[in-house]
Amino acid sequence: MAAPIDYYFDFSSPYGYAASARIDAIAARHGREVRWRPILLGAVFKVTGGQPLTSIPLKSDYAQRDFARSARLMGLPFKMPPTFPFASVAHCRAFYWIEDQDAGKARMFARAVYHRIFGEGRDIAGPQELGTIAEPLGYPAADVVAGMNSPGVKERLKTEVDGAIARGVFGSPFIFVDDEPFWGADRLDQVDRWLQTGGW
Amino acid sequence: MAAPIDYYFDFSSPYGYAASARIDAIAARHGREVRWRPILLGAVFKVTGGQPLTSIPLKSDYAQRDFARSARLMGLPFKMPPTFPFASVAHCRAFYWIEDQDAGKARMFARAVYHRIFGEGRDIAGPQELGTIAEPLGYPAADVVAGMNSPGVKERLKTEVDGAIARGVFGSPFIFVDDEPFWGADRLDQVDRWLQTGGW
Repeated sequence: MAAPIDYYFDFSSPYGYAASARIDAIAARHGREVRWRPILLGAVFKVTGGQPLTSIPLKSDYAQRDFARSARLMGLPFKMPPTFPFASVAHCRAFYWIEDQDAGKARMFARAVYHRIFGEGRDIAGPQELGTIAEPLGYPAADVVAGMNSPGVKERLKTEVDGAIARGVFGSPFIFVDDEPFWGADRLDQVDRWLQTGGW
Repeated sequence: MAAPIDYYFDFSSPYGYAASARIDAIAARHGREVRWRPILLGAVFKVTGGQPLTSIPLKSDYAQRDFARSARLMGLPFKMPPTFPFASVAHCRAFYWIEDQDAGKARMFARAVYHRIFGEGRDIAGPQELGTIAEPLGYPAADVVAGMNSPGVKERLKTEVDGAIARGVFGSPFIFVDDEPFWGADRLDQVDRWLQTGGW
């Protein structure tokens, strides 16, 4: 089997949420797996000078309209959470702790978190709530919270963010097919075609 | 016939160039016309705090790759001009002077200018060269250059830019179907669908 696709995203990114709904199916169609890689856009923006879309005048109103309109077109439930943007450090750490146990369950966890935030439009109050979301996957909330605070997981997140910046990631979602970079949920059709044709 | 679509673009925008190749055909399929509206992103960015894609670290390399890759996928010739980004005031003024004579010829002029810049990857040296590009359309170059310097045309460009900002335009291309805004060449399929369905 060919190398997995790398899918970088921030849990606070609506377009990352949109991509999460399609990326596994696209990869599977071409016999590929996906490595889900949550990162912190805030840390990336310190390097790139970027800003959240919704903090830029004029762009903000458009972005919220576009999130909702694009989601409707995909048939994806979408509602902005009351707090936006928000810090997603805890979300990432919970993901990487679970991934160390089982990568498939980490993906299920990420989907559940994204659904809670942008599908149902709910804030996630803190580490305890992330632990609760992990419970149906078989992990006691207390284990998840303890894991999130472990030095190994904290270091792992830092390594992933640094690695993403080193590869040129500057937004979310950001996808690599082998070494070919694709930025944005609106490039998923190109990702699909690239996987099929090997490039053009 | 329903109201025309408004298509705002900057002559220095590669994605504006990409959209120029499709927008008229999309509109025509649904019995609509297109009002081409060149504007100055530099003036818009003073309000929005935006920057040219290629001036932002990390984004720059990606953007140039994405321009070329997206153009290849569309079968559109694409080559970056030696000078980029560049001031497009003269281009806009020439367009609006021609439009005052004949809107259809102004569109042909805009396509010819875009083709020269991003299809052939050539700088446009100044007003005289813009006049020369207009000659095959039936306008002596000297008339175009004189027209570009008329107070009415200068004022017209300012009015168009101010009007674009007032409508929420913050990038190029930017398209309105009735009052529905679409930003980016990668939203053209949505524009097509919106025209067909009246929204979703």
